[in-house]
Amino acid sequence: MRKVLWGDYPAAELRDLAARDPIVVVPIGSTEQHGPHLPVQVDSLLVAEVARRAAERGGDETILVMPTIWTGLAEHHMGFGGTVTLDYSVFHALIRQVCVSLTRQGIRRIALLNGHGGNIVALQLATGELAREIPGVVATATYFLLAEQRFAGILERQDGVRHACEAETSMTLALRPDLVDIEAMRTVDAPAEGMLSPGFHRWRPIEHWSDSGVIGYPPAASAEKGERLLEAAADAVRDALVDEELWTPPAAQVTV
Amino acid sequence: MRKVLWGDYPAAELRDLAARDPIVVVPIGSTEQHGPHLPVQVDSLLVAEVARRAAERGGDETILVMPTIWTGLAEHHMGFGGTVTLDYSVFHALIRQVCVSLTRQGIRRIALLNGHGGNIVALQLATGELAREIPGVVATATYFLLAEQRFAGILERQDGVRHACEAETSMTLALRPDLVDIEAMRTVDAPAEGMLSPGFHRWRPIEHWSDSGVIGYPPAASAEKGERLLEAAADAVRDALVDEELWTPPAAQVTV
Amino acid sequence: MRKVLWGDYPAAELRDLAARDPIVVVPIGSTEQHGPHLPVQVDSLLVAEVARRAAERGGDETILVMPTIWTGLAEHHMGFGGTVTLDYSVFHALIRQVCVSLTRQGIRRIALLNGHGGNIVALQLATGELAREIPGVVATATYFLLAEQRFAGILERQDGVRHACEAETSMTLALRPDLVDIEAMRTVDAPAEGMLSPGFHRWRPIEHWSDSGVIGYPPAASAEKGERLLEAAADAVRDALVDEELWTPPAAQVTV
Amino acid sequence: MRKVLWGDYPAAELRDLAARDPIVVVPIGSTEQHGPHLPVQVDSLLVAEVARRAAERGGDETILVMPTIWTGLAEHHMGFGGTVTLDYSVFHALIRQVCVSLTRQGIRRIALLNGHGGNIVALQLATGELAREIPGVVATATYFLLAEQRFAGILERQDGVRHACEAETSMTLALRPDLVDIEAMRTVDAPAEGMLSPGFHRWRPIEHWSDSGVIGYPPAASAEKGERLLEAAADAVRDALVDEELWTPPAAQVTV
Amino acid sequence: MRKVLWGDYPAAELRDLAARDPIVVVPIGSTEQHGPHLPVQVDSLLVAEVARRAAERGGDETILVMPTIWTGLAEHHMGFGGTVTLDYSVFHALIRQVCVSLTRQGIRRIALLNGHGGNIVALQLATGELAREIPGVVATATYFLLAEQRFAGILERQDGVRHACEAETSMTLALRPDLVDIEAMRTVDAPAEGMLSPGFHRWRPIEHWSDSGVIGYPPAASAEKGERLLEAAADAVRDALVDEELWTPPAAQVTV
Amino acid sequence: MRKVLWGDYPAAELRDLAARDPIVVVPIGSTEQHGPHLPVQVDSLLVAEVARRAAERGGDETILVMPTIWTGLAEHHMGFGGTVTLDYSVFHALIRQVCVSLTRQGIRRIALLNGHGGNIVALQLATGELAREIPGVVATATYFLLAEQRFAGILERQDGVRHACEAETSMTLALRPDLVDIEAMRTVDAPAEGMLSPGFHRWRPIEHWSDSGVIGYPPAASAEKGERLLEAAADAVRDALVDEELWTPPAAQVTV
Repeated sequence: MRKVLWGDYPAAELRDLAARDPIVVVPIGSTEQHGPHLPVQVDSLLVAEVARRAAERGGDETILVMPTIWTGLAEHHMGFGGTVTLDYSVFHALIRQVCVSLTRQGIRRIALLNGHGGNIVALQLATGELAREIPGVVATATYFLLAEQRFAGILERQDGVRHACEAETSMTLALRPDLVDIEAMRTVDAPAEGMLSPGFHRWRPIEHWSDSGVIGYPPAASAEKGERLLEAAADAVRDALVDEELWTPPAAQVTV
Repeated sequence: MRKVLWGDYPAAELRDLAARDPIVVVPIGSTEQHGPHLPVQVDSLLVAEVARRAAERGGDETILVMPTIWTGLAEHHMGFGGTVTLDYSVFHALIRQVCVSLTRQGIRRIALLNGHGGNIVALQLATGELAREIPGVVATATYFLLAEQRFAGILERQDGVRHACEAETSMTLALRPDLVDIEAMRTVDAPAEGMLSPGFHRWRPIEHWSDSGVIGYPPAASAEKGERLLEAAADAVRDALVDEELWTPPAAQVTV
Repeated sequence: MRKVLWGDYPAAELRDLAARDPIVVVPIGSTEQHGPHLPVQVDSLLVAEVARRAAERGGDETILVMPTIWTGLAEHHMGFGGTVTLDYSVFHALIRQVCVSLTRQGIRRIALLNGHGGNIVALQLATGELAREIPGVVATATYFLLAEQRFAGILERQDGVRHACEAETSMTLALRPDLVDIEAMRTVDAPAEGMLSPGFHRWRPIEHWSDSGVIGYPPAASAEKGERLLEAAADAVRDALVDEELWTPPAAQVTV
Repeated sequence: MRKVLWGDYPAAELRDLAARDPIVVVPIGSTEQHGPHLPVQVDSLLVAEVARRAAERGGDETILVMPTIWTGLAEHHMGFGGTVTLDYSVFHALIRQVCVSLTRQGIRRIALLNGHGGNIVALQLATGELAREIPGVVATATYFLLAEQRFAGILERQDGVRHACEAETSMTLALRPDLVDIEAMRTVDAPAEGMLSPGFHRWRPIEHWSDSGVIGYPPAASAEKGERLLEAAADAVRDALVDEELWTPPAAQVTV
Repeated sequence: MRKVLWGDYPAAELRDLAARDPIVVVPIGSTEQHGPHLPVQVDSLLVAEVARRAAERGGDETILVMPTIWTGLAEHHMGFGGTVTLDYSVFHALIRQVCVSLTRQGIRRIALLNGHGGNIVALQLATGELAREIPGVVATATYFLLAEQRFAGILERQDGVRHACEAETSMTLALRPDLVDIEAMRTVDAPAEGMLSPGFHRWRPIEHWSDSGVIGYPPAASAEKGERLLEAAADAVRDALVDEELWTPPAAQVTV
Repeated sequence: MRKVLWGDYPAAELRDLAARDPIVVVPIGSTEQHGPHLPVQVDSLLVAEVARRAAERGGDETILVMPTIWTGLAEHHMGFGGTVTLDYSVFHALIRQVCVSLTRQGIRRIALLNGHGGNIVALQLATGELAREIPGVVATATYFLLAEQRFAGILERQDGVRHACEAETSMTLALRPDLVDIEAMRTVDAPAEGMLSPGFHRWRPIEHWSDSGVIGYPPAASAEKGERLLEAAADAVRDALVDEELWTPPAAQVTV
């Protein structure tokens, strides 16, 4: 198996790797409530695993995976405890300085791989703001949206990832069954949908939609399903990463 | 016709209106290139008009419309000239201080009505950040997304709003035909789609998709269609604004 | 009549105009209480009109007028309601990014035309701070100070502009008589002077000087007088704008 | 002679003095070029001396003088060397934290006494911004403007203070004759006026007006005149400080 | 073995634990060059391990360990590649928001356990700044300084921890022998001391002292020694954490 | 005696001196409680004196001394009154702009000479942050640490400087005996040590250690001892300043 974790290498080898124009993936998760049955590390655990698996199947491309940024925008989960949250300005500054550190080493292809719904708009915005400043390309995606179609063929009770749901519970069962409370998983009461409204958008805490902090159907989870989801996610991320179009340099110059 | 513009009232009347728990709409547009045939004020012109029309049909609700914020996040249009753009931090700070000024006067229902695609994620983020700080509710929507279904029944060559397109050109023709270059409108060369990619998201200037700065099909525009679109948008915004659910106070208290 | 509003042009024409070294005027007003008889938009309405008229009589010079920045430093008016105010840091950042957007397009002559007393020192300071950073020249003036001598020959009860006074009421009567409460205008009780003290300067809310929020003598206002004031202001602004000395480039280099 | 310098007291005595509602004066100068004949400390030297003399003649009022803030906004003097300059944001933050430190000790009357023209608008702005945040009153004045009429009766070749001029040179001769280059003082070439223009305001370095960095007429300076100016300034500052109107608490509450 | 990792718990259990006044340890490491023989994750790996071991032996105290902050102030290592560095303002903001998230959940005892020399002064400063703002106590220590005496009895060639040295190499050998390049470890050329100078302090990159990026004597490292160092560090950290004096609330109130 | 104070020179001479690559010393003190017997200016008074004396004995080196920054990080003294304190961000920004002003004039050797314990870590951090941005070398030291060994031979009851102690009281007696309360000096009750703890570091106000605000043994102070301490400090600072190694340019370039 390839050694893909940035942290596992000595600096001199990273200098050599940097010279080969690698893709560097920064996994970005969260530490936040995931219902009564899942540990608060779920988003960070899963995105790190997906990033690692995607990198290992990089083929001709060298893909390296940074340590995981384990906190993002999770204010809407604060009411349940166990959660750490950042303001956008700090989240943006942290990601910016990680990217700047990498580009100072010659890295020109950075993928901010996200695993937490609350980070999505923040990362879209941050990617745009970094584009003006940072040499090379900084791209972002959320692994479970990249894998949406693949996941639809695996999940039985949901058509996509919700929160602490069939999908996230399955993947956690595959990786850390010791951290899943099976009894709570089977009995948790949760709505099928939430956190989205038609019409005007307004910030709401997750308890507006769900008393348990869960959205989706955890009882349908299984470790076997989780393994398939992780593999599907890794494939989806890998495919998206090795798309040459993604990394073409920006147009030669801005007219104005 | 009701007097709905905040700026048209003397202060004492606004104090009285504030005591009646009005909805205050802040139209947010942009000043940016809109192809060879449309003036750079289009986004601001249209969102202000939609806001005004929606407020005038407020029924039992008092709806007031602030002056238009005429610049937002438009870096991707800078290459064509004519464009003004703000960083998110300044855009956020400006909106925040407008909202704070309103809430200091007792306003508890603020709707940030957007008319520019580039502002969407910024406003979602800003609304979330303001929620922790500002009493009452700050909500946001983009008028052409609120009216998406209504627009689909009116547009002939597009299934939604693009950029300087059949829809925006039609509405500008309805309001300011003197500012539309009909010859350029008929001959402009533009792709049907753009500014969206599958896979990883990466910031790109609009010239990546369109040499003319237009996305969609302007030649299909007409003033009559524009008037219907404006009315449909006003209806959609009004309906969304008077939804009581939107303005229910947040849950009594955060546990943590 | 010349087309002078930036927002009325398509981007390609603005690119062409930018190549001709135009003067770009940014009108800066306020949204704030103007006594019981005038709407809160007065400062923004008037400065935009003066800017437009000045630009139209630009002669050999191409003068373009940006949309109006409709909020500034108006904390001292907050007590009356109807007012929106910005901190200096946000006001400065907003103006800075408008100026940066313009200079990125090749604009080298920017005039920040002010219509609100509360913005004067802020704009002097901001102009100084922008000078170090921005190519070209950023200048500022308050239209009613530029026109002070001309106004003195027109006003009957004041020797200059006060607040919601003979002058501002007259100009609003000339432009938007529908928004003036004539009864309130005739009966308003206001001191002749205010907002200035000998000795040490100390911030005070306007109610320290005036119970009505008015300073000056509104009953003397008339639409005819207002039209003369607007013309005089436009002349004064035009004359100041076309002064070549104003736009000479800064000295070749700073020694230190 | 009273002990008036804050720094000369032990903390316990300052606690006692704070309980007596003293006026605390913060002298604010600059370190900047003052022509070929004067040292760069002039503005700081003079404002500190005026503050001390004013405090010593406080009568029934206890007036204390902080150490001098010896750097302000002096970008326009940087071209001559010897100068230190701050951005407004840092200048504001520094003054704010000095004021906050004082108000935490119960001080409710703070006078920012200025001695440098480049600080005037910055201090007016800062005073306004501090008013919303800080308990008590923060006021500002420039000593040579407070003493304008008194100075007019003493100066022979100028009607007010310019830069490194008859007035500043005289006062420096009175205090530190060892630091004045008499030969250079007698022969310096300088315009009578500068740093002010009619029409639009635009930042310019002082060399735009004066090759020597001096504005005014230094050869007319004398130590005797300087002593009279210092006494006049101290009287003017004292009179302005002990004006009860200056320190009346703000109106009981803001309506909005 | 106790479950001590915050991320391993579901939110509801963390709420219960928070009610028992736990000590929460935030391990803070770095991602930076550690010579030719060690991976860049060393500081993060070791501090996380020491924190976990210390928490497991907490006795009557409940000690929880947050995920590791894996980047700090490492500018001086950037020259070797492989390194990520933050400015102090971002480092401080990140730690502040983690602490605020914890205190919003009722946590009142937070220990910032550091494993990287470059973070020491930053954490001392940050701890002071947080003290004024955050309820409860935020304390900081660097594990290898806490364990200095214990380490002295174990190390053979150094009297304390240097960089990528006998101590750090030993501990990495104990935990991740697969990531140590034994050949490079045996042959690396490094000075015994560095990064400290008598007299004035001046920032210098580590290459000023060491061509290899190592300071100390790695060839003396062994896994067995590493295990002893980790145990000693865990004991030292545990002892310091359970010191009641550390967590006594601040004095009842500040006089001023 | 050499003229060493920056403020004593006219600008043109400072330009000439700048061309000779001088060392510029910025004395940084504090305004803070120093027990019942010493004035609050002690740290600023002493560091300015030491800087001046060191500069006067510069030998072949030209050493210039800036005015003293008289406020730093003194939150821990606020409880006693008389104290002014800055946040680190403001302290850093102030020092940064002083350094930038100097480097714009060609100064390449700047020594931030500190006289207050609370500033030590802040200055170490700031020096590191400035190194990346500012041309030349910015170094820092605290005079009483530089002179530690010399002081040990002079002090009778302490082995180093504490707070308002034998050393600081002696030096103040040497310079300003009129500001020392001899009776209070003889009777003050103070612990021998304080402000340092083994184990975890936690911010504490000075009253945690000392009811009088003093640490050390003031009754042992004398003016004669103070003069010897000042001379020893000046020697130590001078020796450290003229060390060529301190000012060697940074290594030619950073690899990454």
